[in-house]
Amino acid sequence: MIVRYQVQDEVCYGWLQEGEIAKLQGDIYGEYARGEARTPLSRVKLLSPVQPSKIVCVGLNYVDHAKEVNLDLPKEPLLFLKPSTTVVGPGDPVIYPAQSKRLDYEAELGVVIKKKAYRIRENEAADYILGYTCANDITARDIQFADGQWTRGKSFDTFCPIGPGIVPGIDPSGLEIKLTVNGEVKQSSNTKNLIFSVPYLVHYISQVMTLLPGDVIITGTPAGIGPMQIGDEVSVYIEGIGELNNDIAGDER
Amino acid sequence: MIVRYQVQDEVCYGWLQEGEIAKLQGDIYGEYARGEARTPLSRVKLLSPVQPSKIVCVGLNYVDHAKEVNLDLPKEPLLFLKPSTTVVGPGDPVIYPAQSKRLDYEAELGVVIKKKAYRIRENEAADYILGYTCANDITARDIQFADGQWTRGKSFDTFCPIGPGIVPGIDPSGLEIKLTVNGEVKQSSNTKNLIFSVPYLVHYISQVMTLLPGDVIITGTPAGIGPMQIGDEVSVYIEGIGELNNDIAGDER
Repeated sequence: MIVRYQVQDEVCYGWLQEGEIAKLQGDIYGEYARGEARTPLSRVKLLSPVQPSKIVCVGLNYVDHAKEVNLDLPKEPLLFLKPSTTVVGPGDPVIYPAQSKRLDYEAELGVVIKKKAYRIRENEAADYILGYTCANDITARDIQFADGQWTRGKSFDTFCPIGPGIVPGIDPSGLEIKLTVNGEVKQSSNTKNLIFSVPYLVHYISQVMTLLPGDVIITGTPAGIGPMQIGDEVSVYIEGIGELNNDIAGDER
Repeated sequence: MIVRYQVQDEVCYGWLQEGEIAKLQGDIYGEYARGEARTPLSRVKLLSPVQPSKIVCVGLNYVDHAKEVNLDLPKEPLLFLKPSTTVVGPGDPVIYPAQSKRLDYEAELGVVIKKKAYRIRENEAADYILGYTCANDITARDIQFADGQWTRGKSFDTFCPIGPGIVPGIDPSGLEIKLTVNGEVKQSSNTKNLIFSVPYLVHYISQVMTLLPGDVIITGTPAGIGPMQIGDEVSVYIEGIGELNNDIAGDER
């Protein structure tokens, strides 16, 4: 899979395979080639594999989750945005903000856009997708519901862990998705349970707004949402992609 | 005021005064100087003066507007986001999307951020502001209310005209704000009627998310919201800044 990483002061893209990274030369959104040299994963710091201009989020996209929050199933995808300043990478801390008393995880499949997409058809969507990643739509649940609009409760810095990398070429329609807190399984579903499929979401969102290379669509969370505490270790696993691990840290002003 | 403009194939920043533009050398967010040569405004195309990484919007920030939409006054600023792909400049068309049957204008004072701002105090806010501009928070009202979440109805491409330029150093607390459609006054108020002041908004938003240079806060719209039709000419005027003019165009798929 494609990863972005830092080694000493240099930030690079690479191809991660069997614990080793081959540096990528070129443009991950265009043409690129793998170098010969290999760096062990243990010697680098993985970063968020993308730096999106926007993160388009889909609410209520698993039947079981819509039921657990007592909301009607949407007739169309329900969209909201997270700002790019929410993005952190694998291993980075998620800050539990002092303003909230209820911080939730939400495991989600992330779709990374490859090229500019405006009003494309569902059957063209695959051409516009670079690959897939894990995301965690961290949510200050109390603030989300107090405001009514979901923006503030989902927009704190560090509220969008993304990673560990981008996997091209997989079928997103039947992947196991799982979230654990301190090793205990809290969410366990499969992307076959998505109400609106990945190609439909790319089509639908691109009817409204132009998607740019590196933009990320996070496709909704399955049932089992719940709170985290400072010190918790949260992990999103998606079949064929891997694990995205982040710890919850206190808000030190 | 600071403008961004295109002349032939070159895109530049400049200082617009009395119908003439002096090219700016340097960084508008840092140090810059005005060149000697002057170009008549009529010979350039003005662009949106900023290319924000995010646009943070404040709902219901004028008492009269909250009343006209029958919503309670917010106890805290109500935040939402528009993606950067909504931005257009002075004179650019706003596209009336085929998905909507009710497209509204919303005149707003825009605040352009000068430097990275995270958790700053209200009395420090002025140091983090580059200046002020006019904005039009174009809204597909039917979609906004159908979705409940405001994102989709406010996120179509071309839904955030910004300009004509950025005026540094003015006091944002007592500026006349006006909107006309085909010359007829539809909104007329003053920023003294803002429920939450500009310095408070910078403080409040920066408690949640880091604001970056060029990010824009649009501060809410006064009473008088209403629909537009294809072919309409809409104009936002703010005292001390100037006029932002855009036409409404059809959706040619």
